[in-house]
Amino acid sequence: MKQYSIAKSRRLRSTPYTSRIEKQGVTAYTVYNHMLLPAAFGSIEDSYEHLKKDVQVWDVAAERQVEIQGKDSTKLVQLMTCRDLSKSKIGRCYYCPIIDDSGNLVNDPVVLKLAEDKWWISIADSDVLFFAKGLASGYKFDVKIIEPVVDIIAVQGPKSFDLMEKVFGKIIKELKFFGFNNFNFNGVKHLVARSGWSKQGGFEVYVQDTQSGQKLYDYLFEVGKEFNVKPGCPNLIERIESGLLSYGNDFDNNDNPFECGFDQYVSLDSEINFLGKENLKKVKLNGIKKKLMGIKFEAKEVSLSGSLDLKDENNNIIGELRSACYSPHFKKVIGIAMIKKPYWEVSQSVKAEINGNICTGNVCDLPFI
Amino acid sequence: MKQYSIAKSRRLRSTPYTSRIEKQGVTAYTVYNHMLLPAAFGSIEDSYEHLKKDVQVWDVAAERQVEIQGKDSTKLVQLMTCRDLSKSKIGRCYYCPIIDDSGNLVNDPVVLKLAEDKWWISIADSDVLFFAKGLASGYKFDVKIIEPVVDIIAVQGPKSFDLMEKVFGKIIKELKFFGFNNFNFNGVKHLVARSGWSKQGGFEVYVQDTQSGQKLYDYLFEVGKEFNVKPGCPNLIERIESGLLSYGNDFDNNDNPFECGFDQYVSLDSEINFLGKENLKKVKLNGIKKKLMGIKFEAKEVSLSGSLDLKDENNNIIGELRSACYSPHFKKVIGIAMIKKPYWEVSQSVKAEINGNICTGNVCDLPFI
Repeated sequence: MKQYSIAKSRRLRSTPYTSRIEKQGVTAYTVYNHMLLPAAFGSIEDSYEHLKKDVQVWDVAAERQVEIQGKDSTKLVQLMTCRDLSKSKIGRCYYCPIIDDSGNLVNDPVVLKLAEDKWWISIADSDVLFFAKGLASGYKFDVKIIEPVVDIIAVQGPKSFDLMEKVFGKIIKELKFFGFNNFNFNGVKHLVARSGWSKQGGFEVYVQDTQSGQKLYDYLFEVGKEFNVKPGCPNLIERIESGLLSYGNDFDNNDNPFECGFDQYVSLDSEINFLGKENLKKVKLNGIKKKLMGIKFEAKEVSLSGSLDLKDENNNIIGELRSACYSPHFKKVIGIAMIKKPYWEVSQSVKAEINGNICTGNVCDLPFI
Repeated sequence: MKQYSIAKSRRLRSTPYTSRIEKQGVTAYTVYNHMLLPAAFGSIEDSYEHLKKDVQVWDVAAERQVEIQGKDSTKLVQLMTCRDLSKSKIGRCYYCPIIDDSGNLVNDPVVLKLAEDKWWISIADSDVLFFAKGLASGYKFDVKIIEPVVDIIAVQGPKSFDLMEKVFGKIIKELKFFGFNNFNFNGVKHLVARSGWSKQGGFEVYVQDTQSGQKLYDYLFEVGKEFNVKPGCPNLIERIESGLLSYGNDFDNNDNPFECGFDQYVSLDSEINFLGKENLKKVKLNGIKKKLMGIKFEAKEVSLSGSLDLKDENNNIIGELRSACYSPHFKKVIGIAMIKKPYWEVSQSVKAEINGNICTGNVCDLPFI
């Protein structure tokens, strides 16, 4: 696929680490929450192999935070998500689909409970800030909503545990998955969560002290040499193989959580009040008409820049492929597709035109096995 | 400045014209409303000269529409903007700052009144859709809010009038500035407005029938040969010289309309009800602390990818440069800057480090003269 430049401007915000990753050889960007998110440091295949074996440091400042604080903050956060947060605990992260009045998805952030009256919504690529502000205004909630100065550094990969121990001490290894706490680096407290946008294990440092964060970024490379640390970024191949969904890619505001397999996060039977609850009850009652599924293709390469029609043997359009890559693990092209009823049965055969060739494949479960 | 590739994916949506502009030689993209917006076809200086002399066709599908329809649609649109729309007319466009509860800017769209109960908000780069949905839910407004299928083609430049006459007939020349109406192309009605993101004159075609729009796109080049038509895009140099502000570049959600010189669009004395009205009254009473101004520098080139500190003779930081370019017209570097009080007086001298050199300049009025 031909390459195009990205035209930089203040509107596509740089991060505190941009000058560093540019010295380290970033080659491609995407834009996420109006901010530059690195997308490649040369070959994404090489980066994928390295991520699964060693450890990478990622500039994911584009995972912006929406901070909701105040007396009604819990009410507002709960109103926005179909996941029951009534038993949520301070110091824990929660994957929470954000839903609009119609029951469709607005975002799929990780929500951090910082205090009984203070939350961070660590967002995917849509302006949850303005959704929250609109709701708060209309419902007359007593809340303060801001985008705080938080620029995340992710440390991902199997050796991330040893690298983080060298920086923050043994105690960091006690952090449970999706737990967070404050840890000391060079006299500055940093909020660190055991989380990240890969399935290779790791941490995210929610940097609030920018200067200390930049020092931390450099220090991770200094002490990480023995673990073969490299700069990286969310990796297309790794995230598809791992079945990590992406708002805007795999689903968007035209899809509801049942269509995306988020059933376990939809608390229809609870007492809680959230947007779209009645509409989602109807969806559940009537059943869905389309569903996110995996696809495996007998093909060796693919490069997707938008949706691709999927057809059955009779050339009926049965769905659309939304993300895809060549998987070194499965030795096939794999992808994530929205498939129409009744074609979403596992092993349904599909056809698509990839790079000018008609390729055949089959529907499979997500995550891929 | 080193060039980086843009990593395409479904999340950075292509437009119905993307395959066309790629054949026509687009070289750079920006991302705007989660969509690809062309940023250059080779040299932006050449494109600037051409735009001022002839006519260009632009893929500005990234100017997305938020459609608000229903009984309470006027109430909701008015709630979002500080501009008094009580005397607005069907068939007219209105430049309307969108404001949040605190009085700060959310967007600066052009609003089209399609009917007494139907509006399009033609947005700059932020998710007004979700702001509107949040408000509608909280205020229990009877409205339907969607992003309709509308993919704008802009025809800009002094010869745009003759080119559009060849396509739509003489009647198109009767359209007044910021007026719109439906015009026939090949049996299909297209909404055409006399508007566009340049000061060189022109039109925007709000394409709803995608197939007809693609034919129109091709036809404009076919019949435009005699006017030396070329593909183009919003031009950084032309827009700065013309003083056209850009949300995200020149101002954002940390700025209020008085700081951005939007005074004429803030109807504090009217009876109308809009968000942030009380806060904006306070701002007006207490006066602003910073203000968007022009800057002219004695320099021959600049390339900005973020804010740049501006200093006075004593090295006090007095503001930040947010957009800049070399202006062939003024034969200087010109820019748009947020300047702190009391340094915003015209002819205040400023210094900035541009490409490693300390350059000197002066504050001036916007638009540039």
